[in-house]
Amino acid sequence: MRVATFRSGGNLRLGVVQGEQMVDVALVADRLGMGDLAGATSGMLALIAGGDEASQAVADVAARAPADALLPLATVELAAPIPRPRKNVFCVGRNYAEHAAESLRAIGQEVKLPEFPNIFTKAVTTVTGPYSDIPFDAAVSEQIDWEVELGVIIGTGGRHIAREDAMRHVWGYTVVNDVSARDIQHRPGLQWFLGKSLDGSCPMGPWIVTADELTDPTNLRLRLLVNGVVKQDDTTAHMLFDIPALLAELSRGVTLEPGDIIATGTPAGVGFARTPPEFLRPGDVLESEIAGIGALRNRIVAVGR
Amino acid sequence: MRVATFRSGGNLRLGVVQGEQMVDVALVADRLGMGDLAGATSGMLALIAGGDEASQAVADVAARAPADALLPLATVELAAPIPRPRKNVFCVGRNYAEHAAESLRAIGQEVKLPEFPNIFTKAVTTVTGPYSDIPFDAAVSEQIDWEVELGVIIGTGGRHIAREDAMRHVWGYTVVNDVSARDIQHRPGLQWFLGKSLDGSCPMGPWIVTADELTDPTNLRLRLLVNGVVKQDDTTAHMLFDIPALLAELSRGVTLEPGDIIATGTPAGVGFARTPPEFLRPGDVLESEIAGIGALRNRIVAVGR
Repeated sequence: MRVATFRSGGNLRLGVVQGEQMVDVALVADRLGMGDLAGATSGMLALIAGGDEASQAVADVAARAPADALLPLATVELAAPIPRPRKNVFCVGRNYAEHAAESLRAIGQEVKLPEFPNIFTKAVTTVTGPYSDIPFDAAVSEQIDWEVELGVIIGTGGRHIAREDAMRHVWGYTVVNDVSARDIQHRPGLQWFLGKSLDGSCPMGPWIVTADELTDPTNLRLRLLVNGVVKQDDTTAHMLFDIPALLAELSRGVTLEPGDIIATGTPAGVGFARTPPEFLRPGDVLESEIAGIGALRNRIVAVGR
Repeated sequence: MRVATFRSGGNLRLGVVQGEQMVDVALVADRLGMGDLAGATSGMLALIAGGDEASQAVADVAARAPADALLPLATVELAAPIPRPRKNVFCVGRNYAEHAAESLRAIGQEVKLPEFPNIFTKAVTTVTGPYSDIPFDAAVSEQIDWEVELGVIIGTGGRHIAREDAMRHVWGYTVVNDVSARDIQHRPGLQWFLGKSLDGSCPMGPWIVTADELTDPTNLRLRLLVNGVVKQDDTTAHMLFDIPALLAELSRGVTLEPGDIIATGTPAGVGFARTPPEFLRPGDVLESEIAGIGALRNRIVAVGR
């Protein structure tokens, strides 16, 4: 199932994508007299928290949607699938070997692979839609850079999740771009959070593909294009810490909860590590694609105060 | 006004502390027929988001509370004032000169003061009550350490907040302990987030003192005691980046929102920087005090799986 959040009449609504069409879940459930679907009609976080019962109910609604209730996908305004997460987005730094190497070289540090997953967060206020503009404020940063990443959405929460159980905690997958302000991120001796947390610096979507549909996330091609030119092109097979390892490590001390988002790291090809370095400018268009999920398309747009 | 969140009959309730007594705000408002107080009866985040109108309504209720409606404070079970923040807790690293120096020396780095506030976060799941036990899981960390800090609660949100306007965005103050797992935090080359985010590692409270009552936060004495022995003893006058500087820097790129929590950094005297290093063990009792606000008291308790 491909599940989306979209805007209609000023509200956020839960949708199921069927080919080139969208099912407005709550609307169709109401028309068919199917109730609130174990709470799922109130939105994506309720759907995820509702577990198998809610997911099955939503799948049933989508399957029974009358043809005249389908919206052409092209006419629908998509939001981030989880427009307002319940906590910051978990992120993993340097989780692809070539990217770890290019990053360490670029900041003049010894090139070695991390021994543990390098976890930081992006503020909840970074989350923005799959086709939303990304604000560029030259007074804040002139080194805005790209990072296409596979986003993992937690279904069943837990602590001390074992590697072998980890995939049962995954609800689905989405595309994330961990847009980064390198001048802020790389201030000497400081933590990365602020450079990773500018407003609107986490486009996400275009939807979540549930784990029963995307059964194998271990070899998905990721690509990032700037103005049509490929800048990153790799596969999730090259993650240093795979999804089970990340869930096990995170949940050793941190209870994971339904709807948590984990951005699993970016492959090589980011702007700041290029020779010469490349950064985004107003007007640039960023396309972030993952095979089997979909693509984000975001324009960099100058903002004033 | 001193505003608290407490547990009663399995629910979280908003309270106003008056000396040694607690006013159950929703209960008294209902009894006096005063309505929902601009939404504030539903809890601390609603009170903060409700602005001056909600605060005034709650103050009116507290002032009019009949004597027989007051609960003895000693019998009330306090929760963290904001038991479930809407995002991770913002934290500031190395914001007192002596602590910056002791920390850098302890990890073998050159001692110099930070040029910018060093911002990271603690997961929302770290937040725990002012008298709650702090879990100790030897399989996760054996280097649990203390950090008493002044917590600033944002009232009116905003972006690009100017230094001179910053204090108008502060709703109140609380005591925070940024309990830290040093063995995880200081893994070479990694970000601090994970070592700062163990479940239950952010005791907070015992209440929020609103900014109209605590009008000058620039010289508050902070103390941290372990089993009655003073380990940290300093004043907020020694912050490197004061509250206006922190709000200005954070809000350059990150929109601040009502109810956001900023832990403003800890003074010298933490355990890992002592000779020899000291860490907490099960049974230890941590007291975190700030003059004009109050004190947390938390016991370290071993947990199994």
